[in-house]
Amino acid sequence: MKPAAPQQLIEALNWRYATKVFDPSIKITAEVWSALEQALVLTPTSYGLQPYQFFIVQDAAKRAALLPNSWNQKQVVDCSHLVVLAARTEMTSADVTKWVAHISSVRGLPVASLDFYRDMMLGDIVNGPRGKMAHEWAARQCYIALGNLMTTAALLGVDGCPLEGINPSEYDKILDLSGSGFKTVVALALGYRGAGDKYASLPKVRYSSAKLVKMM
Amino acid sequence: MKPAAPQQLIEALNWRYATKVFDPSIKITAEVWSALEQALVLTPTSYGLQPYQFFIVQDAAKRAALLPNSWNQKQVVDCSHLVVLAARTEMTSADVTKWVAHISSVRGLPVASLDFYRDMMLGDIVNGPRGKMAHEWAARQCYIALGNLMTTAALLGVDGCPLEGINPSEYDKILDLSGSGFKTVVALALGYRGAGDKYASLPKVRYSSAKLVKMM
Repeated sequence: MKPAAPQQLIEALNWRYATKVFDPSIKITAEVWSALEQALVLTPTSYGLQPYQFFIVQDAAKRAALLPNSWNQKQVVDCSHLVVLAARTEMTSADVTKWVAHISSVRGLPVASLDFYRDMMLGDIVNGPRGKMAHEWAARQCYIALGNLMTTAALLGVDGCPLEGINPSEYDKILDLSGSGFKTVVALALGYRGAGDKYASLPKVRYSSAKLVKMM
Repeated sequence: MKPAAPQQLIEALNWRYATKVFDPSIKITAEVWSALEQALVLTPTSYGLQPYQFFIVQDAAKRAALLPNSWNQKQVVDCSHLVVLAARTEMTSADVTKWVAHISSVRGLPVASLDFYRDMMLGDIVNGPRGKMAHEWAARQCYIALGNLMTTAALLGVDGCPLEGINPSEYDKILDLSGSGFKTVVALALGYRGAGDKYASLPKVRYSSAKLVKMM
């Protein structure tokens, strides 16, 4: 694989910002969306368990209903693709069994050869101490996907606005997630910035490397 | 900004895997490390508050002490750069005041013009319902950084292994974080894969797009 130029990466991360105004007339093309979707799917997760689903809300009525549950941030209705990241409500032995079967099938390994791995997962995230906080553990995996997707989008020249200040339980109702085994965690509006977004040209504000990064 | 080719991105995300064996003789160059560090600093966070610090553990004695608190995963000692992501233990009004002052300084705005923004942060993550779970909120921001950093590393041809199965409180002791206002959340070993890592060539296993991504 030919690595990207460091400068290109940093330029993309400086170019991105939390987009306040999307141009509703510009849609992400099928080719670019396909790459974003593949990036989401390729997100690394703990044990590889992928304890999440991603809902792409394109229905106008659903988006309109989400708006008042998103502090009326217009990005929810104006963006090209609205991604809602939802995490498993709990982790069960069935989740682990299904995952082990999938690994076995893709890698052509006997299921029994994965017993040690299966027991490690069961003893941790199902029956172990982390089993009690499995939704929070799964929510953190959603945030890996969020970080991955925001960076990928920036590199593809796609604007985004992460939406943390949403009402997850109302989102769950509108997206009909009750009984699905998933709960809304966070959302990301993707599309293209509108010409009138004054935030696009403001200097980016971050603490310094010296404050954030400590060599020891 | 010239966007990256979608194919290049997907190739990088397919190339990466949770590296089990690092070649301890190959170090990340200063130029590449600088890009990784800048990427970390540029991570988007909720309100921009950056409620975290990143500790780069290069001291051999500290790494040796971390090893038994990392399920003896040798990546901890063999990688080029060991990044420990630590989140604020709580969020105080001082954190918000400092952040507002920093925005005011970088953007040349009167502090008073940010009063609305300040009050929104205080009413949410300090004194609001989320104030009680501020460490968890901050931990999720660490996971955005983790996702961003893993993707950035892959694009730069740098291998990584996320380490979730660590003992955070022992990490805190070894890194002397007591009283710092930060607690260990997760770690990421970065460097270059060793020739003998059989995991490098295994087929990547993910659930399908159809299972993970739902258009609605």
